[in-house]
Amino acid sequence: MPINLRIPGPVPLPQEVREALAQDMIDHRGPEFASLFGEVTEGLKYVFQTKHDVLILTASGTGGLEAAIVNLLSPGEKALVVINGFFGERWFEIARAFGVEAIPLRFPWGLGAEPEDVRKALIKAGDCKALLITHNETSTGITNDLEAITKAAYSIENPPLILVDAVSSLGAIDLRPDEWGCDVVVTASQKALMAPPGLSIISVSPRAWEAYEKAKLPRFYWDFRKAKEYALRNQTPFTPALSVLFGLRKSLKLIREEGLAVVFDRHRAVAEFTRQGVKSLGLSLFPDEKWASNTVTAVRIPPEFRADELIERLREGYGIVVAGGQGALKGKIIRIAHIGRVTAEEMAQVIAALKELLPCSRS
Amino acid sequence: MPINLRIPGPVPLPQEVREALAQDMIDHRGPEFASLFGEVTEGLKYVFQTKHDVLILTASGTGGLEAAIVNLLSPGEKALVVINGFFGERWFEIARAFGVEAIPLRFPWGLGAEPEDVRKALIKAGDCKALLITHNETSTGITNDLEAITKAAYSIENPPLILVDAVSSLGAIDLRPDEWGCDVVVTASQKALMAPPGLSIISVSPRAWEAYEKAKLPRFYWDFRKAKEYALRNQTPFTPALSVLFGLRKSLKLIREEGLAVVFDRHRAVAEFTRQGVKSLGLSLFPDEKWASNTVTAVRIPPEFRADELIERLREGYGIVVAGGQGALKGKIIRIAHIGRVTAEEMAQVIAALKELLPCSRS
Repeated sequence: MPINLRIPGPVPLPQEVREALAQDMIDHRGPEFASLFGEVTEGLKYVFQTKHDVLILTASGTGGLEAAIVNLLSPGEKALVVINGFFGERWFEIARAFGVEAIPLRFPWGLGAEPEDVRKALIKAGDCKALLITHNETSTGITNDLEAITKAAYSIENPPLILVDAVSSLGAIDLRPDEWGCDVVVTASQKALMAPPGLSIISVSPRAWEAYEKAKLPRFYWDFRKAKEYALRNQTPFTPALSVLFGLRKSLKLIREEGLAVVFDRHRAVAEFTRQGVKSLGLSLFPDEKWASNTVTAVRIPPEFRADELIERLREGYGIVVAGGQGALKGKIIRIAHIGRVTAEEMAQVIAALKELLPCSRS
Repeated sequence: MPINLRIPGPVPLPQEVREALAQDMIDHRGPEFASLFGEVTEGLKYVFQTKHDVLILTASGTGGLEAAIVNLLSPGEKALVVINGFFGERWFEIARAFGVEAIPLRFPWGLGAEPEDVRKALIKAGDCKALLITHNETSTGITNDLEAITKAAYSIENPPLILVDAVSSLGAIDLRPDEWGCDVVVTASQKALMAPPGLSIISVSPRAWEAYEKAKLPRFYWDFRKAKEYALRNQTPFTPALSVLFGLRKSLKLIREEGLAVVFDRHRAVAEFTRQGVKSLGLSLFPDEKWASNTVTAVRIPPEFRADELIERLREGYGIVVAGGQGALKGKIIRIAHIGRVTAEEMAQVIAALKELLPCSRS
């Protein structure tokens, strides 16, 4: 049975990427690596839509979030954390783990953050060194309006650094770090970048580098400056996840060939197709549709059905692998991801299977 | 031109491992992953020769060393650091970066650490929480006598935790954490484990878990307890480097089929063959032969030759990729690695090429 992997990362790999992964190892201090690293970095800057530094760390996306905290903040400094899902909570936990005075600004799960509320909370908290925000919440299937939120944050005196978890959005949903003033944007290799997990990729603005100079948390493996110094000679300080780089070179080439604007449009179209399909079954979306994400669709499961059983039957009977709810949403929703080279046909299969498994729901 | 990659990691991948890398992604929270993770963990325990916990982190080996420090030590605690090469210096730097009072015990590069000196230094320093040691120093081509050193460390009152960097030895040179009392042993996927880089693997003793409870450094991504909790249900807290796990499952199978004792013997034989070959050219080994490593041979380059030029000519003319010296040894030595599935024929090629490029040296 062919597998239709519809979890929000790792995503299915294009055939060309899989072939690239089988390449044998090379010297990570040699000329062939330098050319690989240069090509990947250039491709990443294109997808990140940034002229600033883009650093590559061998870690999962969470490692990249931790790196952002330990490079830019100091214990006792305030950070406002926008929380409207599982990954917002993770930002909060990481900041707290390192002694940052993390101030939560919570919104109901399924809604996006209100820019005006963010502005007020920043003023009320006073003297926030950073604003931590998750661009796209796969846990609830929403995308925060990052452009409007950064604008609100910059409207106050002494605007905070803007640190963005863009793990499930970058390369699929428009995000403009330089234009919007995002100081650090963190993503990972296994989502819209269509490579295996193993690399976290981070853009760093000039303002972030200024903060780096003053930040006092201890760091070694995550050190941005070390990563930048090595990047200047097309290397990494420590042996990188080479095969992931091989894959990433190929997937970045695919993205460039298609064009970023087309990739964004394609994600929007397949997401819209999915939402319409889900609704045509009489099911409702978990999030307010105004905020619905173009990379993952979260669907309420009617109380007469068990979500875990549904997920199991999709897997066993149809080869369709979707995700369940996290935290408080466990058992209440399923999450169908459409990140990367996904087609409307693949989403139609999911809708058709749901139709069989949830007969007459609401009809 | 076929490439003969002879750097001390990443090492050439067996064909079966390369094929495994091309597998498509799977759900890292699903049943297929659980079986992969369980199989890999079991294989790792075999190669680690341990019954204790073995944790898998997505990071390079240096990430694993940092994880050991932040999980087990607290700022201001003393650690004796055995330094006889570049990676001993790295242990020292990491410990210092996190506020540990790191006390260096340096030995001349090219020699192994003397167990009796370690014992005396521990007593002199007094109250050392940990001993940090590099089992095998690829920078100088030596292997420390870890068994004797741990014995010396345990002979004092309140013996320290023994934290071992075994990145370039584990799986190639005998190391028995449980028998010798090594509390944390850190390795990485791209050396004797013959997979691509991207995973650091760490054994943790019961004594180390006791230290974990009292250790005060902040941690999130590196948190051993979180890794263990997830490992109990055959998962990782954060999305792991999946393709590296696919490769590792295959390479661990190869190691088990061959048998660890045979693998060690094979490394010893090919190292001995290399040393004899190098000496037959009239070249001398950099290290005292008593300590010569079975994973990498460091060779002095006579002053009439330039090491960087030699490395370039080996690469361009013969497809042989060796490493140069690090730090103070830059330009003075070349390092020829023989880790993994290397054959005497491949080493004979290196010797033959050196013979052509360094004619009549010393003869």
